[in-house]
Amino acid sequence: MRVMDSVSGRYTCLNMNYLLLIMIHIGVGLHAVGGVWPMPQISASSPEQYPLNPEAFYFEYGRQSEAQPGCSVLDAAFKRYFSLIFPDYFPGDNLSVCAGQASLKAETVWGALRGLETFSQLVKIVHFRGILLDTSRHYLPVQAILKTLDAMAYSKFNVFHWHIVDDPSFPYQSQTFPDLSAKGAFHPMTHIYTQTDVQRVISYARLRGIRVLPEFDSPGHTQSWGKGQSDLLTPCYKGGTPSGAFGPVNPTLPSTYQFIARLFKEVSSVFPDSYIHLGGDEVNFFCWKSNPDVRAFMQKMGFGTDFTKLEAFYMESIVNITSTLNKTAIVWQDVFDYHERIPEDTVLHIWKGVPYDYTKELSRITKAGKRVVLAAPWYINHIAYGQDWRKSYTVQPLNFSGTEEQKKLVIGGEVCMWGEYVDATNLTPRLWPRASAAAERLWSDEKQTSSVEKAFPRLQDFRCKLLRYFIFFLVQCFRIIFGSIYN
Amino acid sequence: MRVMDSVSGRYTCLNMNYLLLIMIHIGVGLHAVGGVWPMPQISASSPEQYPLNPEAFYFEYGRQSEAQPGCSVLDAAFKRYFSLIFPDYFPGDNLSVCAGQASLKAETVWGALRGLETFSQLVKIVHFRGILLDTSRHYLPVQAILKTLDAMAYSKFNVFHWHIVDDPSFPYQSQTFPDLSAKGAFHPMTHIYTQTDVQRVISYARLRGIRVLPEFDSPGHTQSWGKGQSDLLTPCYKGGTPSGAFGPVNPTLPSTYQFIARLFKEVSSVFPDSYIHLGGDEVNFFCWKSNPDVRAFMQKMGFGTDFTKLEAFYMESIVNITSTLNKTAIVWQDVFDYHERIPEDTVLHIWKGVPYDYTKELSRITKAGKRVVLAAPWYINHIAYGQDWRKSYTVQPLNFSGTEEQKKLVIGGEVCMWGEYVDATNLTPRLWPRASAAAERLWSDEKQTSSVEKAFPRLQDFRCKLLRYFIFFLVQCFRIIFGSIYN
Repeated sequence: MRVMDSVSGRYTCLNMNYLLLIMIHIGVGLHAVGGVWPMPQISASSPEQYPLNPEAFYFEYGRQSEAQPGCSVLDAAFKRYFSLIFPDYFPGDNLSVCAGQASLKAETVWGALRGLETFSQLVKIVHFRGILLDTSRHYLPVQAILKTLDAMAYSKFNVFHWHIVDDPSFPYQSQTFPDLSAKGAFHPMTHIYTQTDVQRVISYARLRGIRVLPEFDSPGHTQSWGKGQSDLLTPCYKGGTPSGAFGPVNPTLPSTYQFIARLFKEVSSVFPDSYIHLGGDEVNFFCWKSNPDVRAFMQKMGFGTDFTKLEAFYMESIVNITSTLNKTAIVWQDVFDYHERIPEDTVLHIWKGVPYDYTKELSRITKAGKRVVLAAPWYINHIAYGQDWRKSYTVQPLNFSGTEEQKKLVIGGEVCMWGEYVDATNLTPRLWPRASAAAERLWSDEKQTSSVEKAFPRLQDFRCKLLRYFIFFLVQCFRIIFGSIYN
Repeated sequence: MRVMDSVSGRYTCLNMNYLLLIMIHIGVGLHAVGGVWPMPQISASSPEQYPLNPEAFYFEYGRQSEAQPGCSVLDAAFKRYFSLIFPDYFPGDNLSVCAGQASLKAETVWGALRGLETFSQLVKIVHFRGILLDTSRHYLPVQAILKTLDAMAYSKFNVFHWHIVDDPSFPYQSQTFPDLSAKGAFHPMTHIYTQTDVQRVISYARLRGIRVLPEFDSPGHTQSWGKGQSDLLTPCYKGGTPSGAFGPVNPTLPSTYQFIARLFKEVSSVFPDSYIHLGGDEVNFFCWKSNPDVRAFMQKMGFGTDFTKLEAFYMESIVNITSTLNKTAIVWQDVFDYHERIPEDTVLHIWKGVPYDYTKELSRITKAGKRVVLAAPWYINHIAYGQDWRKSYTVQPLNFSGTEEQKKLVIGGEVCMWGEYVDATNLTPRLWPRASAAAERLWSDEKQTSSVEKAFPRLQDFRCKLLRYFIFFLVQCFRIIFGSIYN
């Protein structure tokens, strides 16, 4: 009996030579097979429903599979998905046994992970399906991040964009510059992410096939950096003397680039992902303009009074730093407007043109041959009354004026949950299932998922699954806190 | 040492003959006294801050107080507020003892309760300060209601308006008509409120000085009623034959009034409050118009083709039923437009004119001498991005065209959390602290609380208190579930 003949996702069966094969042995016992969210690119189903018996159910690596026992990611995933599929099962239950089998084939471990997710509800990487959490405007406890990573896996997101620091606070505890969090966090002991915390997040994400993309946004959005690193920010002037206020990072001092190089060397080593997000958005030139040293530097460099050239100079410098660290830079789209000399592989992050004019931005930037990630239509921290997931769902990321080559430069999309009004008390209900609407747009075939009305009952069903999963997460936390009568 | 000389609320010291006096004995130890939300009508404070020592702290009834040990409400409140004031305290701690004293004077037990709330953060009833929860569109577990009652007490709300049934579901388990929930609830066993549940809610609310106002909205909003009570709803007609659909309650049959009389007799006995909410809003005449029996009844009664007269007939009949049960009726304002013959003491509930034109409604209805409760500007289920509590805060309930006599007819206000998009997963972050903005408007002196900007830091501080309280609630639940190592 094969429960899932072709329910695995987009990159099933592409190349049998490099195939992972997981045999899923199932026993007969009653379990309704509902829909899957986000919808698989290809699926076939039969009207029969087969019961699953936890006593007779196990995962097994296929004989010809390249992955075999010892593959930590899949070993852990088998354990996790068994618990998700049979949340109420504890050994000692004894039911009738009658064997069956299902198989899951994938080219990569990450694809197999997505297939396991599909199976637990009933595999495309390379593609960027991100969620941004902002841990600067409000601190998010590690548990809230882990819970989000779990939920991301349920919706097949694969990038956690960690907007870890910003103006309000600097919670990242740097080994090289401990003063940054000691003086720049909301609280130096409780509202920080220690190295252990960061490793826990990265490891938890990895086991769920999620990359962690850290963002250290500069030269703007850095007020909190200045508290623990003197001479980093530009002193603003008023009437010829320093006003006491500070502006963006000071791009005129060699010490600035020495600091950035040391900080990013650490960050590159702590976060294993090949990408690093450098920010570069919303730089206010007012303070730079007020500062006589900055103006003198502008003259010396031949920038005249064009402060976008100064920002370009800064961004080029730090992009080059990250290149020497073998990291690819992602920057907010603002950088595009000021630059002609950023490396070819730098990815532009589209956030402007909210909610509708982003198509023009996509046209303009892909025309210049740049890869882009689309975030503009998915700023879902902007809540509205009613079923506002519909707006996210009807986005057509490739529906912009451009060639086929340009369309290929759209490497994915991202849901942003900025933290002005979000903390651990409301993160989960604001994010889920609203983000799942974008997840289907980024995962599934657009033609099969064009109808919002057809999606609605499926999304309602998926929401119920998420709630069951969240209860499971809660129970796991209880076991950590209170111990367990079962183990 | 007197910590609070005059921090108690509006009706302190009005009549010394009927005074409750609670002595609060405090020991010296360090505790910052922050602001109080909602702001007391009158308060005086000194710059000194006094530490509180849990070993030396106790509540005591004043010798001349009418309330003495055995007053269940205050005995329970002393226990509860002790835990809130010293959440980390367990006997066995041993600190230095040095006695002090504070006193709290109130005319009624309920006023003393408010004063205790004031004290835990650092007393006016008769006035209606309500919160509506809708348990028909989404079922809310009893725990979610209890948590809301706790939070209501923290913001000094005094009426829980329980919109218990509506079109989508009938979760109230009636003793007289068990089929109503058996057939009309989302689930006949899990998504219902048993008599025990209802008593638990009423009792929990009472101990917090909160009245429970049940609403059984009819003749519209009754689709779920029809599932368990045949012949109650009006059969709709299409082309001369019944279409299979049903409309509002059928006002033409004597059996309807017999049913309502029996149901309301039960409800009046289950819910001790002297008020009952009868709904009466948004009646669609389309189905009534289609039904030949209803049209014949109209002719017989001399109503012509004016269906508002039919609705008036129905509402008058059920208001009379509640009068014989010694209950005062509250109805949605729609009823006002169709009626000249509702009892003098019926309260009209203003919900129209959202968000701004409700002042006209207030003028019009108070001019007719009717008492009103204002809900229109506080439909806070309508969420918006950002600090939308500011809209609730700037409402001026008495700023409408009318005489002083008319203003006195505004007996209070109500925050409504309709359940279209609200269930236990998002109720708390949607309700708090947003509802607290209206709480201050309904409790505090308008002149002292006219500035939204001044309120902002106080509300932020109050939000932190709420979070501590919620953690306390969670810990209490854990103790129930897991037992406690402390008791």
